[in-house]
Amino acid sequence: MKNRIITISRQFGSGGRTVGKETAAKLGIPCYDHELIDKIAEESGFAKEYIAERGEYASHGGWLASAFSDRDFYGRSNQDYLWSVQRKVILELAEKESCVIVGRCADYILKDTADCLTAFIHADMTKRAERIVRQYGEGTDTPEKRLKDKDKRRAAYYQFYTDRKWGEMQNYHIALDSGVLGIEKCAEILTSLY
Amino acid sequence: MKNRIITISRQFGSGGRTVGKETAAKLGIPCYDHELIDKIAEESGFAKEYIAERGEYASHGGWLASAFSDRDFYGRSNQDYLWSVQRKVILELAEKESCVIVGRCADYILKDTADCLTAFIHADMTKRAERIVRQYGEGTDTPEKRLKDKDKRRAAYYQFYTDRKWGEMQNYHIALDSGVLGIEKCAEILTSLY
Repeated sequence: MKNRIITISRQFGSGGRTVGKETAAKLGIPCYDHELIDKIAEESGFAKEYIAERGEYASHGGWLASAFSDRDFYGRSNQDYLWSVQRKVILELAEKESCVIVGRCADYILKDTADCLTAFIHADMTKRAERIVRQYGEGTDTPEKRLKDKDKRRAAYYQFYTDRKWGEMQNYHIALDSGVLGIEKCAEILTSLY
Repeated sequence: MKNRIITISRQFGSGGRTVGKETAAKLGIPCYDHELIDKIAEESGFAKEYIAERGEYASHGGWLASAFSDRDFYGRSNQDYLWSVQRKVILELAEKESCVIVGRCADYILKDTADCLTAFIHADMTKRAERIVRQYGEGTDTPEKRLKDKDKRRAAYYQFYTDRKWGEMQNYHIALDSGVLGIEKCAEILTSLY
């Protein structure tokens, strides 16, 4: 039997990760989020912190530049190497078992290879700001600035490696506003679609 | 009790209208689509064909120009007058009863005034092309050209009157790919969210 995968892309602070966890729990299948970082660390030799940051976000300032410099003997940047490992790990997971995968361009990586339901979770700025302050506390920047910054870097990373625009509804089978519908309802809907 | 409204925006050929009809039938509430045109015709004195075309689509060539010309004593174009009647009819409907409303910028018109679930239905070009040929037959233009043309005109109209971008997922509580999920499943999900 072919494995069935749900990929969850999400705006920062939308609770997309929790939607993923709850959906997976309801379906009795694993959810890969932080667990994915462990696997990529094991395979690549990079530190987990580096992967968490560089495997999904364009970093401040130097990222696009570094994607073109610091290349190894084969002409690959660290960033490109990390992308290739991430891609391999995600493809192997999808081959191995049915699961939920949060973030990391899994929607794009699996688009032609797996029986995949692609979801996007979003919410308005106010709801997301409340959520990140509740979850991560106050920061030196306003929550709005932190949200915009993360989204912008996620979008830049996604666009660079996939050549598609991040958060464009055409790329997803379903897009849900978790701020209005609620996390639990989002997980219910995804479960019912599986 | 406050009325509850579902608005359905849709790409041409996505089956969004059918999703609306089926959702309304399941919920036992009316669905306004063509019925809306009748009401607007009654109220405005315009012919139904004119409303069907001009109340949602920017027409070929002259529309944006005509939105600024042909103005009456009060400085309104036909187009602006039609918009104001359409707006009034939709607001009155939402005041009167719970219902499903398809198209006509109802999502925008009702955004601050009604207990509203806003949905967007889309599908990929191939699926939509098949659908319009099945429903409306072959035309002189290719189905792809007809789809692109309709979407473009709908987007231009929406943007002109709402100042928002048509089909941007942030503006909708839920967006569904009817080509992958199927019409019936889309209607089921909307029903479950009501």
